[in-house]
Amino acid sequence: MLNMTDLTPQKLVILGSTGSIGRQTLDVVRMHPRRLQVVGLSAGHNFKLLAEQIAEFRPRFIFCQGAQAHLPLGDCEFLTMEEMVAQNDVDIVVAALSGASGLLPLLSAIKAGKIIALANKEALVMAGDIVMSLARKHNAQIRPVDSEHSAIWQCISGEKSEPSRIILTASGGPFREYSLADLQEVSVEQTLKHPSWAMGQRVTVDSATLMNKGLEVIEAHWLFGTPFDHIDVLIHPQSIIHSMVEFTDGSIKAQLGMPYMHLPIQYALSHPYRWDNHSTPRLDFAKISHLAFEQPDMMRFPCLKIAIEAGKEGGTCPTVMCAADEIAVKLFLSGDIKFHQIPLLVEKVLAQHRRIAQPSIEEIINADAEARISAHEIAKEEKLHC
Amino acid sequence: MLNMTDLTPQKLVILGSTGSIGRQTLDVVRMHPRRLQVVGLSAGHNFKLLAEQIAEFRPRFIFCQGAQAHLPLGDCEFLTMEEMVAQNDVDIVVAALSGASGLLPLLSAIKAGKIIALANKEALVMAGDIVMSLARKHNAQIRPVDSEHSAIWQCISGEKSEPSRIILTASGGPFREYSLADLQEVSVEQTLKHPSWAMGQRVTVDSATLMNKGLEVIEAHWLFGTPFDHIDVLIHPQSIIHSMVEFTDGSIKAQLGMPYMHLPIQYALSHPYRWDNHSTPRLDFAKISHLAFEQPDMMRFPCLKIAIEAGKEGGTCPTVMCAADEIAVKLFLSGDIKFHQIPLLVEKVLAQHRRIAQPSIEEIINADAEARISAHEIAKEEKLHC
Repeated sequence: MLNMTDLTPQKLVILGSTGSIGRQTLDVVRMHPRRLQVVGLSAGHNFKLLAEQIAEFRPRFIFCQGAQAHLPLGDCEFLTMEEMVAQNDVDIVVAALSGASGLLPLLSAIKAGKIIALANKEALVMAGDIVMSLARKHNAQIRPVDSEHSAIWQCISGEKSEPSRIILTASGGPFREYSLADLQEVSVEQTLKHPSWAMGQRVTVDSATLMNKGLEVIEAHWLFGTPFDHIDVLIHPQSIIHSMVEFTDGSIKAQLGMPYMHLPIQYALSHPYRWDNHSTPRLDFAKISHLAFEQPDMMRFPCLKIAIEAGKEGGTCPTVMCAADEIAVKLFLSGDIKFHQIPLLVEKVLAQHRRIAQPSIEEIINADAEARISAHEIAKEEKLHC
Repeated sequence: MLNMTDLTPQKLVILGSTGSIGRQTLDVVRMHPRRLQVVGLSAGHNFKLLAEQIAEFRPRFIFCQGAQAHLPLGDCEFLTMEEMVAQNDVDIVVAALSGASGLLPLLSAIKAGKIIALANKEALVMAGDIVMSLARKHNAQIRPVDSEHSAIWQCISGEKSEPSRIILTASGGPFREYSLADLQEVSVEQTLKHPSWAMGQRVTVDSATLMNKGLEVIEAHWLFGTPFDHIDVLIHPQSIIHSMVEFTDGSIKAQLGMPYMHLPIQYALSHPYRWDNHSTPRLDFAKISHLAFEQPDMMRFPCLKIAIEAGKEGGTCPTVMCAADEIAVKLFLSGDIKFHQIPLLVEKVLAQHRRIAQPSIEEIINADAEARISAHEIAKEEKLHC
């Protein structure tokens, strides 16, 4: 079978190249040098790693948040992220920024009609309606990178019927079996030890509170157009089944694999083909012996319910919920609030927020900024501090 | 989305309409009267049920093995199966005969370029090479009905890369946990109680010996062109995951569902669409709680190894193995041999058989007939009788 990507390398821009997803994307590029070529890298303040990446991958375009003086630019052109993703020579944009910062570059890539490998779930949580409408208008293909959404995408690939139900699996995080009382005493260190996935700090805390799964429910709603009531969350501690899709005939398709991000990242770049992948160990069912499932407990993990409710309410609510959570996680990581106070803080910020039903991008960005201020203020006023 | 089958019903011939798959195919027709229309029915000697089916579905063409006098033919035309499947007006042939009897009608349907929903796995075991070559030549689409092969087919649908591994799941049958000594004493009654699937007698016994899974390995080899060394068998007692496919990137796709044959039968008729299916209960993961796996034990279940070896050897070997097994199962059901003697008898028939490497259809049919005689003779001579 002719695989066009064997002949012409796909030209990549990686937004967030020094983060967890960015670094793993570069691993995939290293494994497939004839198929993938890095033309642009964007990072925050990790100049040292970015300099190494520039030396190794020799991109044409660079962006970083600090002073360019730190970087050996050579022949590189310094561009804003919005400019970089829209260059003619770019085929695929890997959107691996976290939080709200990725929204504007994403919109720019969509308007340029690029293929987007989207790891920045907050962009869909904040502005799913706008992002997906714009993608349809500009014929920009949005490919999921999150393992769960990649699983769903792989399962619906080739199907001519919409899924009747999405079953989003969740590891349940490190505190799956903790009582409500135990949850009040968990430390930052315990929280950052995820049982199956190696990820960035915020997403690791969000996995422990199940907020991450709530954000993923919203992401799935927008990516696949599935109503919230047709998206179930199922705890599956081994993280082997990455998600499942049910069809109208009762048939369920699941995607399984070892919990390594190289696989979904690579699939977002290789689709509709599959490339060799020697970095990810194969599943060995002789060793697995069984796969376990249980229902999520919304009492002990209220963030899941808060997120889904905010997603259903729509408008600026998911933005505010997501921004408040980002601050709450930071305050938890810095020792300012306790683990069980994360959902309390998010709920209080949401309660004070004056909703906008059909917000513009500006209104979304304002709501995001206000929610962050509001979260800090409430944390102070309410003496949530430990 | 426009579904053409909503507008024009697909015209079906069902070979083996009074058998288990045939009757369940008619259930699917009952659920989708605007999408499916029965134009031909063929049965063996169950005149009473066939007469009821004729009255209900009013097919144009009929075949039965006994005298036509038993049937209220009305406007029906009596045709051979080979004639019936080749009629212009036939879209899909459901090949649900068991054993060697289905081979010639199948070849006739293939030569007529029909879509074939194939439940008659023996046809592929006996003549996989001829059947698949002929199907390519005449552009006849062969769609699997077996739940395992339907699962594989659903998982590779839309994929542009060949699977690197097929993982065929097996319930393990009712004697999965029996010792070798216990297996010598099992009764016909115990054998016919399959833990998860309701099926015909031969396939139920073949499931208990794991011969059925061996036949399915050969069937998968021919249907999907997968080398034998890339087909694994995995014991999964709950029969929820119907099979899995691994791709070169390490991703595995699985198809799951309640163990009801209506689903794979319907999918073979609805493909590439999916239709509502209210007869099959949905999977409830809150109730399932876990899915278990273990490796098959070839010592206690030698039929699995015998079948795979015969498949690898090819030529007339799979035919002889399959025919010998059919006789061995009959002798077991009639109380003439014991359960553990089934593989012994099959091995002895294979040992005496003079292989033909590239057999014609005639040579295959002869080898089949000779193996049956040989099985009876060996059973008598060797005093295998209890």
